[in-house]
Amino acid sequence: MQMPVPDPAILSRRAAIVARLRAVIGGGDVIDDPVEARAYECDALSAYRCPPLAVALPTTTAEVAAILQVCHAERVPVVPRGAGTSLAGGSMPTADAVVLGLARMNAVLEVDYADRQIRVQAGRTNLSISGAVDEAGFFYAPDPSSQLACAIGGNIGMNSGGAHCLKYGVTTNNLLGVTMVLMDGTVVELGGPMGEAPGLDLLGVVCGAEGQLGVVTEATLRILPKPAGARPVLIGFDSSETAGACVAAIIRAGVLPVAIEFMDRPCITATENFAAPGYPDCEALLIVEVEGTPPEIDEQLSLIRAIADDFAPVEFRESRSDEESRRIWLGRKSAFGAMGQMGDYMCLDGTIPVSALPQVLRRIAEMSDAAGLPVANVFHAGDGNMHPLIIFDANRPGDLERVEALGADILRLCVEVGGCLTGEHGVGVEKRDLMTAQFTDADLEAQMRVKDVFDPHWLLNAAKVFPLHVSASRREGLRNVA
Amino acid sequence: MQMPVPDPAILSRRAAIVARLRAVIGGGDVIDDPVEARAYECDALSAYRCPPLAVALPTTTAEVAAILQVCHAERVPVVPRGAGTSLAGGSMPTADAVVLGLARMNAVLEVDYADRQIRVQAGRTNLSISGAVDEAGFFYAPDPSSQLACAIGGNIGMNSGGAHCLKYGVTTNNLLGVTMVLMDGTVVELGGPMGEAPGLDLLGVVCGAEGQLGVVTEATLRILPKPAGARPVLIGFDSSETAGACVAAIIRAGVLPVAIEFMDRPCITATENFAAPGYPDCEALLIVEVEGTPPEIDEQLSLIRAIADDFAPVEFRESRSDEESRRIWLGRKSAFGAMGQMGDYMCLDGTIPVSALPQVLRRIAEMSDAAGLPVANVFHAGDGNMHPLIIFDANRPGDLERVEALGADILRLCVEVGGCLTGEHGVGVEKRDLMTAQFTDADLEAQMRVKDVFDPHWLLNAAKVFPLHVSASRREGLRNVA
Repeated sequence: MQMPVPDPAILSRRAAIVARLRAVIGGGDVIDDPVEARAYECDALSAYRCPPLAVALPTTTAEVAAILQVCHAERVPVVPRGAGTSLAGGSMPTADAVVLGLARMNAVLEVDYADRQIRVQAGRTNLSISGAVDEAGFFYAPDPSSQLACAIGGNIGMNSGGAHCLKYGVTTNNLLGVTMVLMDGTVVELGGPMGEAPGLDLLGVVCGAEGQLGVVTEATLRILPKPAGARPVLIGFDSSETAGACVAAIIRAGVLPVAIEFMDRPCITATENFAAPGYPDCEALLIVEVEGTPPEIDEQLSLIRAIADDFAPVEFRESRSDEESRRIWLGRKSAFGAMGQMGDYMCLDGTIPVSALPQVLRRIAEMSDAAGLPVANVFHAGDGNMHPLIIFDANRPGDLERVEALGADILRLCVEVGGCLTGEHGVGVEKRDLMTAQFTDADLEAQMRVKDVFDPHWLLNAAKVFPLHVSASRREGLRNVA
Repeated sequence: MQMPVPDPAILSRRAAIVARLRAVIGGGDVIDDPVEARAYECDALSAYRCPPLAVALPTTTAEVAAILQVCHAERVPVVPRGAGTSLAGGSMPTADAVVLGLARMNAVLEVDYADRQIRVQAGRTNLSISGAVDEAGFFYAPDPSSQLACAIGGNIGMNSGGAHCLKYGVTTNNLLGVTMVLMDGTVVELGGPMGEAPGLDLLGVVCGAEGQLGVVTEATLRILPKPAGARPVLIGFDSSETAGACVAAIIRAGVLPVAIEFMDRPCITATENFAAPGYPDCEALLIVEVEGTPPEIDEQLSLIRAIADDFAPVEFRESRSDEESRRIWLGRKSAFGAMGQMGDYMCLDGTIPVSALPQVLRRIAEMSDAAGLPVANVFHAGDGNMHPLIIFDANRPGDLERVEALGADILRLCVEVGGCLTGEHGVGVEKRDLMTAQFTDADLEAQMRVKDVFDPHWLLNAAKVFPLHVSASRREGLRNVA
C-alpha cells in the first residue's frame, strides 16, 4: 500500500505543537509518548499501521474547537477518531497528523420522547444510545455489527448500516442534526430537530463524508418505539443462487422484514463447528425476521412462506419460542468469530441491486475458483449489502496481494452491475484507489471542490477517500502555505 | 417586494442570444414573442410577475446542455421551470433570464420492477409516474397536493412532500439518482440505482437546492408495491389544541399511519358549505389513514382508538365502506378550493416538532386575533408540516402587507420552537428575506460557497433562496466577467 509522505517540517515542530495543544486542552489529555500513542496507530484494518504525531483527547466541543484552531494555525493534519473500529482505515493516522480521539465525549445531552429524539456527544457508542432510552421503550435503529464498540461519530462519518437497516434505513435516515467544528475552529450547527431544513442539505453531505469536512462533536438522532414483538424464520436452500432469487422475490413483493440475512455453506459449516446453532445441512440459508403484534407477524410470515415455497426450500423453520429465536440468530451473530477460527480473512463491503444477487453470487464463486482463494458469504441480503469474506493465510508470502487483487475485482463487479464500492464501511485508505472504478475525473473533482469549501488547506483526514495521486496537489498545497 | 435589477447589457443583446439558442435547440422551441412568453412570467405565487428575456423548451438532455452552454458563454441568467406550480416563486423569472422549461421532457425511460425503480425525464408529472406503474401494482410515494400538475424536476428542486410522506418519506427519501446538467453544459450523473454511493452525497445536496446547482433532466425513483388496502378514520375534538395533543400522542406511541391530516373549525365550516362531506360539528378534526391487510388495519385502528379515547373525542368515525372513505377524504381534498370561495388567502408552509403542535396552534390563534386577520389551519399534522391559511381581501389597500407581516411572524414562530421556514414549498423569492431568521451569516456563506462550486458565475436561479443583499456581490460578479 502506497503511503502519503509525511511533512518533515511538521515532525521537527512536534514539541512546540504539543505544547500549544496542552495549553488549550482544558479537561482533556494530549498524548505524545510514543508507547502510549501506539494504541492509535491503526484501526480495525490492522494490516496497515502508522504512529501519529500526537493524540488529543478532548471532552467538550469548545476543546475540539481550540485543538483545531491550533492545528489550523500550525497547518498540522488532523485525523478524527471515534472508537477506531473502521474496517477501511478511516481513522488510520499519518505520521504528521494529530489524532483527535472523541471517546471521552460520550454523554447523553438531552432526550425528548415526545418528538422521538436524543442528543448525544459524538464519542458515545452506538449500543449505549439505545441503552439510554431502553427503559422508556425506545431504541436507535441503525445497528452495525460493531455496535457494542463503535461510536456514533464514526457511524455518521461512514453513514453506517446494520441488519435492521432494511426496514429503518441507514444513519443518514436517522440523523436529524449535528454540531460540527470546522478545521479553522468555527462551530456550526447543521440540520435540527426537524431533519429537513431550508437551503442546501449540508447535513446530508456531511453524513458519509468520512470526517473530511469537519469534526462532528454532537448529534441529534431519531429514536423509535420498540416493536411489540419480533420473530425470525430460517429458510434453507439447495443453492446460493436460489436463496438470492428468493430474497429478490421477497423484496419485489413489497414485504418489509426487519432483516434478511444470508449465509452460504462455508459460513454455515464454520458456525456449526464453532457455535453449534443446529442449522440445517444446505447450500445457503436466509434468516428473515419480521416485527409487530402477533397478528401482524403471522400475516407477514404467511406471505413470506408463500413466496419461499416457489423456490423449493429444503427447510422452513419458524421460531416458536424465544429460545428458538436465540438459536436461529446465534449462528449469524457468531459467523465472523467462526470464520476467524478458520484462518485469516478479508471482509469486503459492496452493494448491488437485489435483483443482481443470483448473478453476482455465481460470478463470485467463479472468481474464487479461478483465484484459488475460498470466499464465504454472510451478509445483509435484503438491501443488497454484500460482505464476501476471502479466506487466506497471512503468513504465506504473496497471499495478501492476491487477496487484495481478488477483492478489488469483486468490488469492480459490484459497480458493473449497478451497485457501489462500499455499503457501510466507507472508502478510507482501503478503497481509495478503486474510486476511479465508480467515478469519472470530473466526479472526483466536484467532490474535492466541495471539500475545498469546508477545508481549504486539506488538513482533515485528507489522505483518505480519493486516490493519492488525484488529491496530491491539494494536499501538498498546504505545505506551501504553512 | 424588492426585485433584483436586470442587467441592461443582456436585454440589449436579446436578439443575438435568441438566435444562438435557436441554432442549438434541435427538436425543441425558443419563444421570444412577448405575448407567448407571458405564460412564463409567474408561477403559482401569482402576486409576483416578471416577463423573461426568452423561453427555451428543450426535449432532450443534449438540448439542455447546448442551451446552458450558450447562456454560460453569454453570461445570461437561467431559471429552470418544471410545471410552474411553485407557491414560493421558485420558477419566477427575472427580466434578463432565459426560462428553461422542461414540460416537454416527460418520457418514461425505464421501469425495473425487480429492483423497484423507474427512470423518467424531469418534466414528467408526479401523478403520471404512479400512472406508468399502476397496472403492475406499484406507485411512487411522495404526493404533493398539486400532483396532477407538478413535475418531478420541481419536486426534486423543492424536496416536496405530501400526505403520504409521514410513512414513506419526502422526495429525498425516494430519489435514487439524477442526470443533471451543470451551468457550463457539463452532464453529470449523481447517485445511482443503489441510492447511497461512496464519496460525498451530492445527490442529497442537489435535492432541495431549488434549481441553483444544476438542471436535473432525468431521475431514477424508488417505486413501491401498492398496499393491500387502506382505511381512514375521522376523529373530532372540542379544541384545536386537543387535536394537536392527540397527534403528538399517536406519533409518540410509534403507530405509523400513512396520513394524519388536521382541519380546524374555519376549514370544516368552509368545506361543509362547499362540498358537504358530512363532517361533525366540532372545533377540529383529524383524518387518520392506515394501510395493510385487513387484520393489520384492524390492529392499528384499535391502537389509535385507544390513544384517541384519552382525549375525549366528540366523534370517532371509522370508515366501513369505500363510499364512506371517499366522503371522509372529500372534505380534506376540497379544503383549498373551499377556502378560495371564502376570499383571498395566503398559504404558509412551515414545520414544527409534533410535540409543539398544541402550543403553536394556540399562539397562531392569538396572533390572528391581534392582527385582525382570520387564519384557518389544514395540514399534514403527523410530520408537523403546517399550512396556515391567512384570509384577506386582496382589493383592500394595505391588506397584503399586513398578511405578509403576519405570515413572517408565524414562520418565525415555527423556527423559534425548533422547526423550520419551509416544509415542502421551498424558499424561492417568497421567503428569501426570512432565511436570516433560521441561519447565521456563516451558515448562509457556507451554503453560497457550495453554490460557487457548481455555478461559479451565479447564473442559475440566482435571485432566490438567499436575501438579495446577501447574494448581491456574487450575482453582480457575473456582470464584471461578462
